Amino acid sequence: MRYDTVIANGRVLTLNPAFDIIEDGVVCIGNGIIERVESRASDMAAYPAGEVIDAQKGLIMPGLVNAHGHMPMSLFRGLADDLPLAEWLNEHIFPAETRHINASAVRAGTRLSCLEMILSGTTTCCDGYFLEDAVADAVVETGLRAVLAQGVIDFPAPGVSDPSRNVEAAAEYVSRWQNVSQLITPSIFCHSPYTCSSGTLTRAKAAAARAGVPFQVHVAETRQECNQIKAEYGISPVKYLDRLGVLDDKTLVSHAVWVDAEDIRILASRGSAIVHNPESNMKLAAGVAPVPDFIRAGIPVGLGTDGCASNNNLDMFTEMDCAAKLHKVFSGDPTVMDARQVLCMATIEGARGLGLDQRIGSIEIGKEGDIIIINTHQPHLTPMYQPESHLVYAVRGADVRDVFVRGQALLRNHEIVGMDVDTILAEAKTRGARISQSD
Amino acid sequence: MRYDTVIANGRVLTLNPAFDIIEDGVVCIGNGIIERVESRASDMAAYPAGEVIDAQKGLIMPGLVNAHGHMPMSLFRGLADDLPLAEWLNEHIFPAETRHINASAVRAGTRLSCLEMILSGTTTCCDGYFLEDAVADAVVETGLRAVLAQGVIDFPAPGVSDPSRNVEAAAEYVSRWQNVSQLITPSIFCHSPYTCSSGTLTRAKAAAARAGVPFQVHVAETRQECNQIKAEYGISPVKYLDRLGVLDDKTLVSHAVWVDAEDIRILASRGSAIVHNPESNMKLAAGVAPVPDFIRAGIPVGLGTDGCASNNNLDMFTEMDCAAKLHKVFSGDPTVMDARQVLCMATIEGARGLGLDQRIGSIEIGKEGDIIIINTHQPHLTPMYQPESHLVYAVRGADVRDVFVRGQALLRNHEIVGMDVDTILAEAKTRGARISQSD
Repeated sequence: MRYDTVIANGRVLTLNPAFDIIEDGVVCIGNGIIERVESRASDMAAYPAGEVIDAQKGLIMPGLVNAHGHMPMSLFRGLADDLPLAEWLNEHIFPAETRHINASAVRAGTRLSCLEMILSGTTTCCDGYFLEDAVADAVVETGLRAVLAQGVIDFPAPGVSDPSRNVEAAAEYVSRWQNVSQLITPSIFCHSPYTCSSGTLTRAKAAAARAGVPFQVHVAETRQECNQIKAEYGISPVKYLDRLGVLDDKTLVSHAVWVDAEDIRILASRGSAIVHNPESNMKLAAGVAPVPDFIRAGIPVGLGTDGCASNNNLDMFTEMDCAAKLHKVFSGDPTVMDARQVLCMATIEGARGLGLDQRIGSIEIGKEGDIIIINTHQPHLTPMYQPESHLVYAVRGADVRDVFVRGQALLRNHEIVGMDVDTILAEAKTRGARISQSD
Repeated sequence: MRYDTVIANGRVLTLNPAFDIIEDGVVCIGNGIIERVESRASDMAAYPAGEVIDAQKGLIMPGLVNAHGHMPMSLFRGLADDLPLAEWLNEHIFPAETRHINASAVRAGTRLSCLEMILSGTTTCCDGYFLEDAVADAVVETGLRAVLAQGVIDFPAPGVSDPSRNVEAAAEYVSRWQNVSQLITPSIFCHSPYTCSSGTLTRAKAAAARAGVPFQVHVAETRQECNQIKAEYGISPVKYLDRLGVLDDKTLVSHAVWVDAEDIRILASRGSAIVHNPESNMKLAAGVAPVPDFIRAGIPVGLGTDGCASNNNLDMFTEMDCAAKLHKVFSGDPTVMDARQVLCMATIEGARGLGLDQRIGSIEIGKEGDIIIINTHQPHLTPMYQPESHLVYAVRGADVRDVFVRGQALLRNHEIVGMDVDTILAEAKTRGARISQSD
């Protein structure tokens, strides 16, 4: 028995159901699968391997799951900030999308986002955008794991000029990408209940259900959205979606800021998952989602960065930090959203929301080898009393030293493997200069 | 004419009153003072220098001012999190201080904090703790600029076992450190209106005033404090301090979370400055200080990380990000606390609060050479539309490449100059292990 890769000489945060932390741990990976996890029993000869990775006393943990984002929008990072939402969208983001988004721009922005995510420890991301074939093409090159959703909206959109074809285009996209790669799960993303008709929502959900893939939708992000849906249908966005029958355990709801107790009860009873995007909700002043209530209701809650135009980064470590702190100050209770809970949101709970919790989200035998190593020999991580606390409150993306997806190294000693960083940055800069000129 | 150091080939964010940004900028430093700032007029022969620093197209900006913290407490980073405030303080932090804080621990924690601050772009810090001579000894070795305050509290404290000597000890500390170094400003820090009697507060302020040094105090951090002061004196903490006559333009108020319009009017009329510590206030669920109101009232507002036990890091970039986002979501207005305003809090406004705005806080001729260089050739900083936006919403401490204080390099290409990082980390780890055993 010879493993492909053995990671050793670190503290393993398994994030298994017992939250075991293994001192001087060894993680053995064969054919992409975790085959052995234990405290080192003897010398390394007991762990024959194609390659041994020395974690140098760092933390070995599951890769992070960024459960909501829009990768191509990294091209708009910082294009327009500190503006009223309508002005931001209508005068900057939408015009920039109209002028500059095409398949090659989508590929360029996606590659840029993948670089940033790999460098900061994300191994699985969930994306929703248009021209999603181009997103998927780019992601496949990078080696990241992803749930990639074709966007559906009742307006002309990049790649779908006739909105009456939006659901059909999404269904065709899904069929193209099913069973193409172990790492890619196609999905359908309805933009929102206020930009998609009830017919669009039900047909899109039906198409996703037929294919057995996740259905996603932005719900109750702003107070304005709630007022609009209430004015039109007399009920909240969640109740409206429930009445349409689109909420079930393969539906992933992003934001859910403006929800009441009954909405939460409905989401819990349908088995839907929620993705919380604290930095985006803060920056756009959307509001504070009642995440502690979601968790109490048993709803799986993942964590997402949202797109770069409203964050403006894809670092899941700062997202965890913000999530923990925001809910403490908002509730007035420093015990809510403790480090372990937030860490679970960024790993196993996000995986659960994406339907991937049997395969990733923790370091356990039989799961796939999506693992990151944190370099803890640094002033801002010294001393270390509780690794979980450090990961939420002190570790930053730049502390990620190595990244593996299904046992394949995507980052080694802070260096990207197999992608040409300078070329990707140069292309993004060129496109940025063009976008800037027309803004 | 030959400069000691010339920094070139970057974009200079001056943060001068016009917020000039100089493309292809050159900053010339002689004897620690900025002597020339301009867009490169010709080849580098026009800028004869002992050393030329190539910023490699990065951002050249004033060093950050961390206007409130407790450096030795980095030894307690992550010791106890997610707990009710009283339990955190009384069962973890206070016992750890009693058992483990002595002069050598203070030096060790201070060195550790200085490393972290230099690595993340802070060039000036403001500290309040006990055994402050030991803090000052350690800071002097590092080359950082600092306002260092001896703590005053009406209980036995490390180094001051007899509280009746607390103000005298602080005054003696101040006299020892006045005019010792161009980089060190001594100061007196009364812990709070609920831990210092009115006599202590007035005597401490008088001692600071006699010496002409800043007087600092934590004020209105928690609702409980306000209730306590109100019960005892019938008025708010700010009004109480004002009645004692301790608020003037050399008083620096930390937190100011629970203040009303009249309190704000008083602080503005006295010329006192406020230090905002958003991450600490969030993590301890203290509340949200009305910072936009402070700024509207013309009060100088600096930004601080607070101590590592309640943050748990000293990265001023994430502090800026949190400050901007917290106030947007709390006010429901995405236009408040824009990137420029927050950047000023972390530089020139913090310097103003510390009485150092004539010397630091911007890149202008005649100011001292406290300058940092940000490496922007990275995925998470690409593309770049607005440097100020990037600095608040995307740059992180780890992106700081070089740090200069009064023209002296403290960080070169991410490497600490003149301090033995491994030795400092090893000592902090040893102390951490001991603290952990007794917690």
